Amino acid sequence: LDYQHVQVPFEITLWIMLASLAKIGFHLYNKLPSVVPESCLLIFVGLIMGGIIYGLNDKSPPVMDSDIFFLYLLPPIVLDAGYFMPSRPFFENIGTILLYAVVGTIWNVFGIGFSLYGICQVTAFHLQDVSLLHNLLFSSLIAAVDPVAVLAVFEEIHVNEKLHILVFGESLLNDAVTVVLYKLFRSFCEMPTITSVDVFAGVGKFFVVGIGGVLVGLTFGMTAAFTTRFTKDIRVIEPLFVFLYSYLCYLTAEMFHLSGIVAIIACAMGMKRYVEANISLKSHTTVKYFMKMWSSVSDTLIFIFLGVSTIGENHEWNWPYICFTVIFSLSNFSFCLMCSCLLSCFSGVLVLTFFVNRFHVNTITSKDQFIIAYGGLRGAICFSLVFLLPDFHRKKLFIAATTVVILFTVFVQGMTIRPLVDLLAVKRKRESAPTVGEQIHIRFLDHLLAGIEDISGHWGQYYWKDKLEYFNSKYLQKILLREYDQPKSSIVLLHEKLERKHAIELAETGQLGHGPSHPSLLNNDRTALPEKKLEDTLNPDVLENIQEILARNLYRIRRTGPAYNRHTLPGETEPVEHAKEILILRHKSL
Amino acid sequence: LDYQHVQVPFEITLWIMLASLAKIGFHLYNKLPSVVPESCLLIFVGLIMGGIIYGLNDKSPPVMDSDIFFLYLLPPIVLDAGYFMPSRPFFENIGTILLYAVVGTIWNVFGIGFSLYGICQVTAFHLQDVSLLHNLLFSSLIAAVDPVAVLAVFEEIHVNEKLHILVFGESLLNDAVTVVLYKLFRSFCEMPTITSVDVFAGVGKFFVVGIGGVLVGLTFGMTAAFTTRFTKDIRVIEPLFVFLYSYLCYLTAEMFHLSGIVAIIACAMGMKRYVEANISLKSHTTVKYFMKMWSSVSDTLIFIFLGVSTIGENHEWNWPYICFTVIFSLSNFSFCLMCSCLLSCFSGVLVLTFFVNRFHVNTITSKDQFIIAYGGLRGAICFSLVFLLPDFHRKKLFIAATTVVILFTVFVQGMTIRPLVDLLAVKRKRESAPTVGEQIHIRFLDHLLAGIEDISGHWGQYYWKDKLEYFNSKYLQKILLREYDQPKSSIVLLHEKLERKHAIELAETGQLGHGPSHPSLLNNDRTALPEKKLEDTLNPDVLENIQEILARNLYRIRRTGPAYNRHTLPGETEPVEHAKEILILRHKSL
Repeated sequence: LDYQHVQVPFEITLWIMLASLAKIGFHLYNKLPSVVPESCLLIFVGLIMGGIIYGLNDKSPPVMDSDIFFLYLLPPIVLDAGYFMPSRPFFENIGTILLYAVVGTIWNVFGIGFSLYGICQVTAFHLQDVSLLHNLLFSSLIAAVDPVAVLAVFEEIHVNEKLHILVFGESLLNDAVTVVLYKLFRSFCEMPTITSVDVFAGVGKFFVVGIGGVLVGLTFGMTAAFTTRFTKDIRVIEPLFVFLYSYLCYLTAEMFHLSGIVAIIACAMGMKRYVEANISLKSHTTVKYFMKMWSSVSDTLIFIFLGVSTIGENHEWNWPYICFTVIFSLSNFSFCLMCSCLLSCFSGVLVLTFFVNRFHVNTITSKDQFIIAYGGLRGAICFSLVFLLPDFHRKKLFIAATTVVILFTVFVQGMTIRPLVDLLAVKRKRESAPTVGEQIHIRFLDHLLAGIEDISGHWGQYYWKDKLEYFNSKYLQKILLREYDQPKSSIVLLHEKLERKHAIELAETGQLGHGPSHPSLLNNDRTALPEKKLEDTLNPDVLENIQEILARNLYRIRRTGPAYNRHTLPGETEPVEHAKEILILRHKSL
Repeated sequence: LDYQHVQVPFEITLWIMLASLAKIGFHLYNKLPSVVPESCLLIFVGLIMGGIIYGLNDKSPPVMDSDIFFLYLLPPIVLDAGYFMPSRPFFENIGTILLYAVVGTIWNVFGIGFSLYGICQVTAFHLQDVSLLHNLLFSSLIAAVDPVAVLAVFEEIHVNEKLHILVFGESLLNDAVTVVLYKLFRSFCEMPTITSVDVFAGVGKFFVVGIGGVLVGLTFGMTAAFTTRFTKDIRVIEPLFVFLYSYLCYLTAEMFHLSGIVAIIACAMGMKRYVEANISLKSHTTVKYFMKMWSSVSDTLIFIFLGVSTIGENHEWNWPYICFTVIFSLSNFSFCLMCSCLLSCFSGVLVLTFFVNRFHVNTITSKDQFIIAYGGLRGAICFSLVFLLPDFHRKKLFIAATTVVILFTVFVQGMTIRPLVDLLAVKRKRESAPTVGEQIHIRFLDHLLAGIEDISGHWGQYYWKDKLEYFNSKYLQKILLREYDQPKSSIVLLHEKLERKHAIELAETGQLGHGPSHPSLLNNDRTALPEKKLEDTLNPDVLENIQEILARNLYRIRRTGPAYNRHTLPGETEPVEHAKEILILRHKSL
């Protein structure tokens, strides 16, 4: 037996296997995941595992290594989040998200920090030795809303798209802020005196870390898209490039002390569109599937490790401090409490929302506000950051407080948020995908609004969106896409996708026919063309031609003016109905 | 800049990126890969990289770590090979493959070892200090035909299926033999005296290592298949299990000093059938795609590292020894040369083939024999094994000889084998997939032969295949498959696959129809059924019913006796023709 030789890969594989089997186990009992979020169950499994290890070895189980977390477990989850981020709602609410992520987080950090410093002044608690700076350092890490935990819970409760993107986008983008604040306070802790120059440098760093991350991400994303132009002959390694470039992008950003999370999201969102057009359909399935799989495994491992790491003797249980931390960080209510209940209902979120609502037509309701505040779960990011703290005599207290906050938010908030959403009757996500008709109307309105903005001289989001689209089709696509001369509109792509899906369904039920085809087309032609010409249209070349015209017209809808025509789109009545109508019509004509 | 922090993953990612970009580069010039095998080009890139590193650092570039090779790079390639191994030709030729792998390899090891010992006795070469045991140890590693190199070359030249499986199967299965011989001679080298008991124990070890590997592999394979029964609700981690179980299987086998390669092949071949039936179509695409991608990257990295490791000062250039090693190991001709050209044409392969041909109806032609002998490429396995040798004063000579043999076989044999195959007019692989008709005939003959063997009391391969099939459907499928009550024959599956493919093609050209369907069915019915009934068959339930009957009948073809009916299968005439015929017929009837 030669265990030493294979130990490292063997143990890694076993952990992943355990995580996957735990996942299967939960899903065998269908009722369990609908009551308790998976993250809680996984932490519970981790606690049991940690207990077993602790019992057997009689020493604390190994703590999750911060390097392993930040270098190997976090990137797949963030990549998955960025790649599948619905870009339209994200960019529509980018202002609100940034406001919450930047102003809200800073607010929280200082709110929690000063409040805890206040608590430390109470002599009964024996905490006078914790300085303000240490409190701020601690609050900077405890204020970081964790995208992994948020995603794990919000994926299961299906709130409406806007609310989801607000909570989730904030949890992703606040990384840049918390990283800066954390590093700033950490270096302040080690400095003998702090000058005002240092503070200004800290403020400047925000922009460097955030915008630098975006730039690194976009650079790698564009390179990835450019690379996939040349993979036509070796389809098999296409999916690799998506993963390689995003990972390199994350590592590069981390190397330059920029925000890796922001970078990988920019990279994924930037490359998605071009990569998707360049790579084959099967490659794309692999990319999507593998990304989901990988992030799911990382996610599972993180929660199990969280549970395992909780057990042990790393903690100092000063209950007043811990309890007040939980209370202060209970979602984003810190400001509310900081102002010592003077403003009672105006928490950080509420004040911010007031400003947001003033400048937006689409207001955020008070229910939504509550869910945003309540959805601020903490997770493995705080946990890893607290272990990275420089050694000082109260580190174990901070570790204990962080552990309790994480367990509290994941268990209590995570488990009660679903009943709360039900209770408040928060608007849910619509079950069905938008119909083609809706999509056309949305697109039509976009163009209309861009035109109105153009005429009124107001440079709003539609104006910029239109300019970006123009730049994209004029320059970017020509460089990045392999077949740039056939820009297909998303509606045509959707139509193709639906047709493909339908074809597979037909094949599976054995209804596939080789006879008269393309009902939407037949439907358009049947009023104008005689019977014989109908059969001519079966010629694939002609059909392709028509489809291309269709694609071009849809795409250039704004540029060519009144080319919009309701006959150039597939109808929305039931396809089976179509087929029957055609049959009846043909019988009659014969 | 904090490079230290991200160094390990950053450098790994960069190496993989380099490998992938090199692959893209070769394929940009279409003519290059058709002349030079990719493996040669990759080694060449590695040599350049090694030269650059050597030039910049002025010391030998890092050598490929044996642990990295055996634990991380080799398993994906072997898994891919095992998973996509065509099981029918493999089992049909298993006897021949085993004969080549076991007897042929032992023959080669002793042939090369004794010949080299003979060379060492020539005083002019200054090699008298290399003992017989050291020569045998060296020959045991240099005789290992490398599946990675063989696969890389033979995938490009498309020889006929049987020849391919013989060369490739031998290169995979000889791992068990070379591992045993290598470890045997290594321990003999360290022992003061060798008793006959040790030799017998060595012979016994063959069976333990080989059969143990198969058992470990099958155990893990069955467990994997069983696990995928329960993944219905979490499709997203299905592909993971295939990889996790195969890797665990490899590591477990290595841990117990069994043959990891044999284990992973048994695991992959064992689980494939059941896993494929259990997991979803998209999961399966991901598994296949990712396996190919991973093995392709490993492959690329191995050849690049081979090139990099070649540069440096690890070598002792005793040219006579090296040249004779190349000559002796030039394919499997060692025996021929060992017998000092007495038997001139009877190389090891030829003698073995003589025996094989006596007991087989399907003889191996002399051309095939030559290609088998010539296709014995050496690669990274030899290279890793030679670095694992215990330190002794002639190790550098062995390293030099191994490097030269590898470069010689990969470059000279790899580049000339394609022209040779053309020159000898070796039977090539047929371009088209077997038609449905052929498949039916093959299956029919299988049943016929099983029946004949049954009656004549001869327990041949068909008898055992039939018994295995019975055991499989009676017990294994019920345990391992989720929906075991619908065993579909491979022909029905093929038909479904073709229909699905056709449907996608139709959808892509826009010819998808919702009208009268399933031409094969219409074709069958049109002689018997009147027009109205034809339209009734459009009902999906009825169709499903018919398909199920079709599936069952095909499956139980042998058990139900004369149920074989040429009308129950899709015809082979052109589908468009069908559609036209149907149209004409309907026009007439109206």
